[in-house]
Amino acid sequence: MQRTHIDKIKKHIGEKAKIAGFVQTIRDQGNIKFLLVRDVTGILQVVVTKDKKEAMQAAEEISHESVIEVKGNVKEEGQAPGSVEMEAEEVNILSLSDPELPIPVVEKGQKSETEQSVRLDWRWIDLRKKNNTLIFKVWSAMESAFRNYCIDNGYIQVHSPKIIAAASESGAEVFEIKYFDRKAYLAQSPQFYKQMAMAAGFEKVFEIGPVFRAEPSFTSRHATEFTGYDAEISYIESHKDIMEEEEKMLQAVIKEVKETYGEEIKEMFGREVVVPSIPFPKISMKEAKKILSEMNIEGEKEGDICPEEETKISEYAREKFGHEFVFITDYPSEVRPFYHMRDENDQSLTKSFDLLWNGVEITTGAQREHRYEKLLSQAKEKDMDIESLQFYLDFFRYGCPPHGGIGLGPSRMIMKLLGINNVRDATFIYRGVKRIKP
Amino acid sequence: MQRTHIDKIKKHIGEKAKIAGFVQTIRDQGNIKFLLVRDVTGILQVVVTKDKKEAMQAAEEISHESVIEVKGNVKEEGQAPGSVEMEAEEVNILSLSDPELPIPVVEKGQKSETEQSVRLDWRWIDLRKKNNTLIFKVWSAMESAFRNYCIDNGYIQVHSPKIIAAASESGAEVFEIKYFDRKAYLAQSPQFYKQMAMAAGFEKVFEIGPVFRAEPSFTSRHATEFTGYDAEISYIESHKDIMEEEEKMLQAVIKEVKETYGEEIKEMFGREVVVPSIPFPKISMKEAKKILSEMNIEGEKEGDICPEEETKISEYAREKFGHEFVFITDYPSEVRPFYHMRDENDQSLTKSFDLLWNGVEITTGAQREHRYEKLLSQAKEKDMDIESLQFYLDFFRYGCPPHGGIGLGPSRMIMKLLGINNVRDATFIYRGVKRIKP
Repeated sequence: MQRTHIDKIKKHIGEKAKIAGFVQTIRDQGNIKFLLVRDVTGILQVVVTKDKKEAMQAAEEISHESVIEVKGNVKEEGQAPGSVEMEAEEVNILSLSDPELPIPVVEKGQKSETEQSVRLDWRWIDLRKKNNTLIFKVWSAMESAFRNYCIDNGYIQVHSPKIIAAASESGAEVFEIKYFDRKAYLAQSPQFYKQMAMAAGFEKVFEIGPVFRAEPSFTSRHATEFTGYDAEISYIESHKDIMEEEEKMLQAVIKEVKETYGEEIKEMFGREVVVPSIPFPKISMKEAKKILSEMNIEGEKEGDICPEEETKISEYAREKFGHEFVFITDYPSEVRPFYHMRDENDQSLTKSFDLLWNGVEITTGAQREHRYEKLLSQAKEKDMDIESLQFYLDFFRYGCPPHGGIGLGPSRMIMKLLGINNVRDATFIYRGVKRIKP
Repeated sequence: MQRTHIDKIKKHIGEKAKIAGFVQTIRDQGNIKFLLVRDVTGILQVVVTKDKKEAMQAAEEISHESVIEVKGNVKEEGQAPGSVEMEAEEVNILSLSDPELPIPVVEKGQKSETEQSVRLDWRWIDLRKKNNTLIFKVWSAMESAFRNYCIDNGYIQVHSPKIIAAASESGAEVFEIKYFDRKAYLAQSPQFYKQMAMAAGFEKVFEIGPVFRAEPSFTSRHATEFTGYDAEISYIESHKDIMEEEEKMLQAVIKEVKETYGEEIKEMFGREVVVPSIPFPKISMKEAKKILSEMNIEGEKEGDICPEEETKISEYAREKFGHEFVFITDYPSEVRPFYHMRDENDQSLTKSFDLLWNGVEITTGAQREHRYEKLLSQAKEKDMDIESLQFYLDFFRYGCPPHGGIGLGPSRMIMKLLGINNVRDATFIYRGVKRIKP
């Protein structure tokens, strides 16, 4: 007999069916046992009665979170969750759980009282919660939509190397690898290699992959390893083309998430997914600083905004434009990497932007400097180690179209979509300064 | 004026249009210059005549592989490639190439005479060849089809950590990372974490990401970093369910590649893409060894087959079953990792398989041992370091469905699809023992 997923069980009312899953709760009433069985699609009440001798014998052995397979009759039952239950005829134990669970599997609606670090120690049990499983279903849909947008729009996908010979953007915050008889490093972003693809004439590329940051940072939005979405396109006029492309991309992605999981997100996270309208509001850094100073907010840095300022400027954009997103544009050259293109009319500014979503930066983007001499002089100005950068600078010596691109943080997008306030909960398995397990 | 891609230029015959791309060849006839301009979709002949003064001036500055933008009239021209050309009215140089190219951009049909290692040094110029660009278009389509198959069939996607606390499968062949004040390692596969997802009740997962192998190997099919496709599914009866799933997966993927790029692959690589029929032939390791010994082929290893034997057994399968694929099943426990499930009736065998495609192993798969006690004893039997494995063993103590899965090598699939005999050419940027640049 084929197994039926629990979300499809109602189609079998009045018939025999087979299900399988984890035993979430066991209610014992002497001659009768009620098991709540959970699979990846839902929860079903299973009734085991004494007259089914072998089934009852098996049921008596079962501990919470054991995995079982049940065959039985499906019938309507007003009292049961989903108004359906299964009368067990056969119960097979596929995997018996240790009766002492290190953390409880909290049901929907209940708030977990276990400390986060303990939950992360036992991440696979933590992930059994319906809400947590939904995070990764949503992530799958989000990523699928991102990729489909790219594929449908003629992007070529690349997988750039994570093992690199020189630190990609700056010497700091990079992990060192023992590479046979020499040293190598872990890529902090696919930036240089996306640009290499532009020099190869690929015109539009995207990449999805891990990025590594040796930042000794303990905030709720940082991790030492996380997934990045990257895109780069050629033959642009300026960074404005990139912002336009990102608007279309995000609209398509959020629309797909809403269509696929909008209802479940509302039910489990109490959030309405809002498909953003195009264009998104845009505020230059200079304007942003003016607006913030009028709100009496003074940031830590000149020419850049700190998390508190990001929150405030997002609130401002939500009120003024009714939009969850806002681009901050024209960052000073001082706070941007050497490869960002400068404004033709004002060398102190770059043709770059960040994108904030409800107070959190989810993207950095820019037009890149593709002219070898200018790039070299900007690198020198920033005191970069030219020798170790030469392999990258060479990309621009034999013809390279004007280009630009973005890096997007999917875990931060998930935080914003679902209202999760910590990147650790939005990541399948979190990595931080003090955490490399499980 | 919007830019037109060259594959769409014929729609503009009799009109004005704008194109952009690399200047592949320059033919000078005094009063007239012919430029072959290449974009990601094709090649167009551009004619610059003396009466267009500024255009001619620009054309005179242009070196091979410079990037230009051209506006002009599109007209039919029997002599030109594709029977269409553009009469330039305006030529803008977007990026001037150094006239001394380190390697030539070889046209379709010409064989490159540059040594591979030199080509890899200048990979971005090497990738400009039409054939090489096509490799990554095909890869994009292949990966897109793989992911769509998974998403359409209810898989959840995961991104497992690449920074890990302990070597994943064996202590050897793992890269060590300096991780703040301690040591960490680069994941050799997402194996343990796919299994963690099974213990979390995700039921079906897939992952696409880099894997790292510190193998001092210099063969044409090995790299120290490469992309892996991984899938894992729960509630299977045996490894046979996994093979069945992989057959469907590969059929869908190859069908999609054929539909999207079948014609171009035939034209540029001279290969016919063959959509495999289901089921694929299956031969047990024992049978395979018997067949090989009847062919007088003696391998290096008992219970396992070496590359030469893989070639021979694939030839046998092609002749006998008319199939490009063949599963080799029931590998001895001796040659398989501790977590492969043993055969109930013969503990010396595992419920595992490899998949060969025209002589090359592209997959290893198995049912995994999900029973804690058995897994522990198999780990001890293989002399594994139990202490550093404990975090993994714990996945199986609190309920875990029976499960199994596969790891697939996309660069090897590309080799087989396109008839490329070296993984270095099938990889965007190759990493080997002696190569971490560019």
